[in-house]
Amino acid sequence: MSSSATLPSAGLPLGFLWGAVKAGIKASGNLDLAVAVAPEGANATAMFTKNQVVAAPIIVGRRHLAATGGRVSAVLVNSGNANCVTGEAGIEACVQTCVAAAESFRCIFDEVFPSSTGIIGVPFPAGKIVAAMPAALASLGDSAAHAELFSRAIMTTDTKLKVARAVIDIEHGEQAGKQIRIFGAAKGAGMIHPQLGPPHATMLVYLFTDLDAGPSELASLLEPAAETSFNSISIDGDTSTNDTVLLIASGASGIKLDARIGEAFANALSLVCNSLAHQIVDDGEGVTHVVNLHITGAKTAADAKEVARSIAHSPLCKTAWSSGDPNWGRLLAAAGYSGIPFDPEAVQVWIGPQLVLFGGLRSPDFDEAAAHETMMQREYTIRLDLGQGTAESRFLTCDLTAEYVAINADYST
Amino acid sequence: MSSSATLPSAGLPLGFLWGAVKAGIKASGNLDLAVAVAPEGANATAMFTKNQVVAAPIIVGRRHLAATGGRVSAVLVNSGNANCVTGEAGIEACVQTCVAAAESFRCIFDEVFPSSTGIIGVPFPAGKIVAAMPAALASLGDSAAHAELFSRAIMTTDTKLKVARAVIDIEHGEQAGKQIRIFGAAKGAGMIHPQLGPPHATMLVYLFTDLDAGPSELASLLEPAAETSFNSISIDGDTSTNDTVLLIASGASGIKLDARIGEAFANALSLVCNSLAHQIVDDGEGVTHVVNLHITGAKTAADAKEVARSIAHSPLCKTAWSSGDPNWGRLLAAAGYSGIPFDPEAVQVWIGPQLVLFGGLRSPDFDEAAAHETMMQREYTIRLDLGQGTAESRFLTCDLTAEYVAINADYST
Repeated sequence: MSSSATLPSAGLPLGFLWGAVKAGIKASGNLDLAVAVAPEGANATAMFTKNQVVAAPIIVGRRHLAATGGRVSAVLVNSGNANCVTGEAGIEACVQTCVAAAESFRCIFDEVFPSSTGIIGVPFPAGKIVAAMPAALASLGDSAAHAELFSRAIMTTDTKLKVARAVIDIEHGEQAGKQIRIFGAAKGAGMIHPQLGPPHATMLVYLFTDLDAGPSELASLLEPAAETSFNSISIDGDTSTNDTVLLIASGASGIKLDARIGEAFANALSLVCNSLAHQIVDDGEGVTHVVNLHITGAKTAADAKEVARSIAHSPLCKTAWSSGDPNWGRLLAAAGYSGIPFDPEAVQVWIGPQLVLFGGLRSPDFDEAAAHETMMQREYTIRLDLGQGTAESRFLTCDLTAEYVAINADYST
Repeated sequence: MSSSATLPSAGLPLGFLWGAVKAGIKASGNLDLAVAVAPEGANATAMFTKNQVVAAPIIVGRRHLAATGGRVSAVLVNSGNANCVTGEAGIEACVQTCVAAAESFRCIFDEVFPSSTGIIGVPFPAGKIVAAMPAALASLGDSAAHAELFSRAIMTTDTKLKVARAVIDIEHGEQAGKQIRIFGAAKGAGMIHPQLGPPHATMLVYLFTDLDAGPSELASLLEPAAETSFNSISIDGDTSTNDTVLLIASGASGIKLDARIGEAFANALSLVCNSLAHQIVDDGEGVTHVVNLHITGAKTAADAKEVARSIAHSPLCKTAWSSGDPNWGRLLAAAGYSGIPFDPEAVQVWIGPQLVLFGGLRSPDFDEAAAHETMMQREYTIRLDLGQGTAESRFLTCDLTAEYVAINADYST
């Protein structure tokens, strides 16, 4: 078995149709309603935001997954309105769109999985979605162009399409020569600091596969993959009310999950999730530098992640990164208020390959110009060893720029 | 007894001399060494940052206060270099400056209280401070101009002088007609999210008074005043390695602390601390709007403060404030990930006088133009009632602007 995450050449998972239309929700008039249909049905598992303020589609999606025991026949995603803080009317509006989708796509209404992204607190225009359903149905197809259409319609402030694919070739045994395929589509690009919880995580991610696996098997595959990808990134530290990751399996490959396939699938799913997570950060609002925080020498991986989060959310670290300023004192200060205990004297800090802090002091070999050069790259690694243990964590984040401020201060959102 | 916090007219506390010189630490050549001397000695209490990475002067200051039982004869503050992450050499350099100050000001070296603010991780130029000591001694005086000189020399990116005074007139009893005076000087303006702990608080604040009180009495007066002022503000959420608040009492008023005077003094001290805390936020890096967060209806005041902190640190809330965008959904989302449990349906949100969220829904009377108008004021209040109890908290914060990014991305700090 081998897996690859190269994008355009590999095949799409069987058993799905994708499409999208302009339903008139976005003021811009762009694509704003994405649909994916599994004509023969599919098993699914989802992770939702841990924010206690959650959007109507999350309430409805949870309810549907519980009612059907994890069966999903259609995915209905709109951009332009988050359907959040819209009260009982918002929930009813969401249900109304699921009912209309079920009629069009010929499934039962609670096999429709809804998602929304956009502004919070504005009444949800269910009528526009219902009216667009015939066009959505007509847009469906199974080509790469159709999958791209779906992926494009979920975008909001994203500047780039975020997709990833993997193909697992079965090389041995009875099913040698067969393939399992994964296709993932994601959107960012602000309010990104996902805190996904099982079975609860406005990052939207849809992972389609033709593996044959049940909802609980899918959940045990998704959770570890999400933990080291989507739960290990932050753009601005704001955890959305609408974050959703859906893993949906049509079973159309005819390949059932077993231990050996499970391992290969887990690896391939991780590749896809890591690729999408990286794409989300790389296309974060106003981002000019992607920073890989590698925290080592912690007592636990959770400690390491908490230190990474503290640095990733520090405006002083993030602004210094925007100009390539090797101001490592800010890194240490942010680690120092993370709440994770460590001995500052034991900490070592590297910017790219260069050791800049050692033994409680600026390294005697500190070369500011070289550190600045590293930091002027689009992407680089900062490593901080706490000297407390052997656990570690990797966390992907970005700089804070005037462009981020301009995007989010733009009074029209 | 009455108290007032009006600035220039009230008298300065007796028993102190202030001064400042250019020691050549700041590249700009501005004032960078501030000194205050209590020729007859004084009692003092200090609060330091809770960041576990702390600067050398904090280590030395703690040691000195412990050794002398809270006696301070001189305060020595430099700007331009934080003397942090400078190892044993940094501590020795700090001690060396205290010894030089003790010689010049004729006290014992551990009655010198040192503070530093500036860049982290750069070797501390003790020699420049030692060399400047004769000039510092010559600069001392007890006029308002001298107090201002001290206050100006502690500034870094501050654009405004931050001072506050209060005078307590004793109106009854044996000491009727006498006065107790408080003078406070502070610096901001970035890395501001103080988390001061007793007895440990790069906000620097010096509170001078001529009250006659012991170190432990001063500590019990300072802690509650700091909790509702300096510990209830945030500019960028970054907790410095050097934050310090010093309350120093010369006793020169001749008025001993008792229960009645204690209450009046506590009120006056709160006024001074609140005024300085407000000035720090108002002069925060790049600030164009000051936002008073008033969180009510919480189960505990600590819960209310945690919700306030979550909103105050949300880049999406802070950027929306910069343009007066009444995007209250971002407020609710930030409250939702604060970790404090509440029922979103029970939450009410006001922008200025206007109720914008009620019963889990946008208020039917929501007037976006009016809310925008409120938010275009330099300063306004956002109130969020959690509907969970009767506790509350007030927290002062500010917007996040492109100017903040420019200041902190400026690669020369």
